[in-house]
Amino acid sequence: MLFAATRAPSGSNRQPFRFLVLVDGPKAVAAKLLVARGARQIWEAKRVADGYDRGTGTDDSSPKARMAASMQHYVDHLGEAPVLVFPCLVRHRAPFPTESASIYPACQNLLLAARALGFGAAFTVMHYPVESELRELLDIPEEVFLSGTITIGRPSGGHGPVRRRPLSEFVYSEGWGVPADWAVDPPGTKYTSAGPPKEAVHGQTDRPTRGDGAARR
Amino acid sequence: MLFAATRAPSGSNRQPFRFLVLVDGPKAVAAKLLVARGARQIWEAKRVADGYDRGTGTDDSSPKARMAASMQHYVDHLGEAPVLVFPCLVRHRAPFPTESASIYPACQNLLLAARALGFGAAFTVMHYPVESELRELLDIPEEVFLSGTITIGRPSGGHGPVRRRPLSEFVYSEGWGVPADWAVDPPGTKYTSAGPPKEAVHGQTDRPTRGDGAARR
Repeated sequence: MLFAATRAPSGSNRQPFRFLVLVDGPKAVAAKLLVARGARQIWEAKRVADGYDRGTGTDDSSPKARMAASMQHYVDHLGEAPVLVFPCLVRHRAPFPTESASIYPACQNLLLAARALGFGAAFTVMHYPVESELRELLDIPEEVFLSGTITIGRPSGGHGPVRRRPLSEFVYSEGWGVPADWAVDPPGTKYTSAGPPKEAVHGQTDRPTRGDGAARR
Repeated sequence: MLFAATRAPSGSNRQPFRFLVLVDGPKAVAAKLLVARGARQIWEAKRVADGYDRGTGTDDSSPKARMAASMQHYVDHLGEAPVLVFPCLVRHRAPFPTESASIYPACQNLLLAARALGFGAAFTVMHYPVESELRELLDIPEEVFLSGTITIGRPSGGHGPVRRRPLSEFVYSEGWGVPADWAVDPPGTKYTSAGPPKEAVHGQTDRPTRGDGAARR
């Protein structure tokens, strides 16, 4: 997985990506507990702010409730994740808007390789609330951008193809917002709107969305 | 390629990635010329600043000279690229450090799909010098992060496996800078240091580097 990760492109091919891998040493144990604390903090706030326990969230079989249950399980067990990886970017100059193009493609390669090899890997930013403690624990230098937290393990369930909104919503041609009539999903593609519940984003009341229907299996 | 791109993960699965695809309409022609201008500006400055015409750069067969020739060709022909794609991130709040984790994984999926399908795709930030003109031409809203420029075409040469520095340089375990003895490249892996010539980075005189030797085919 790390070999695949590090084959990714980077600006001027400087290869500034580093992967700090934590398995079972004393610092690994401490880092996992720290990130688990950060995750609880983020998820508890998000669960309320995004209204996961309102509207269709009260129906256990709804996509919203299942998403919340899945997140709760992830957060509750993050401290036991077999492997934690911190993808880092070694900056060679002051931060600039596109610098992450030298670290996130490598992260995506890692996720794809994990999936291809029968593992599950999830990219999060659950380290945010505990970043300073993590930096101290792991001696991460100041100029290094700690760009995420990746957990790796064996998936407990099966994974089908991921679901997204229709391709036509993502692709424009000739100008912003101009539809591309050739941007058509392959036959049999299933959709989801997913993302945070709509009412949390737009301040509207809870209502069925395309995702609430289409994402149900 | 775009279907693969848009299967990528994103923060809270908000799917904020958009791909503005320019092929052969009037705005596409104009956008290609604009980006070609930006590319010339970036490359002409970089060629001098990074010393591509000094030291081993004067030997046409050196990796440094071949890299410069390849970039020069790319820049000279960028205006004729069959397809130009602008990957964009629709922001839902003020910029934050890890927001690009919702656009660059999608870009990497696009590059991988292009390669798998026999095309060549290159990610650059050649739009930087002409960004405001591009935004006006293509009606890109202010809150949208124009995160790169991807060219797609048929590769004129063959592509071997990419070369990077040894895996052990990218992987740490238990703490920053702590080597991971299990981080070993697969047998037969070939290396390069690549990146900008070392003397340009460190202000040292030109000298053979591991990359200068190892990258020669």
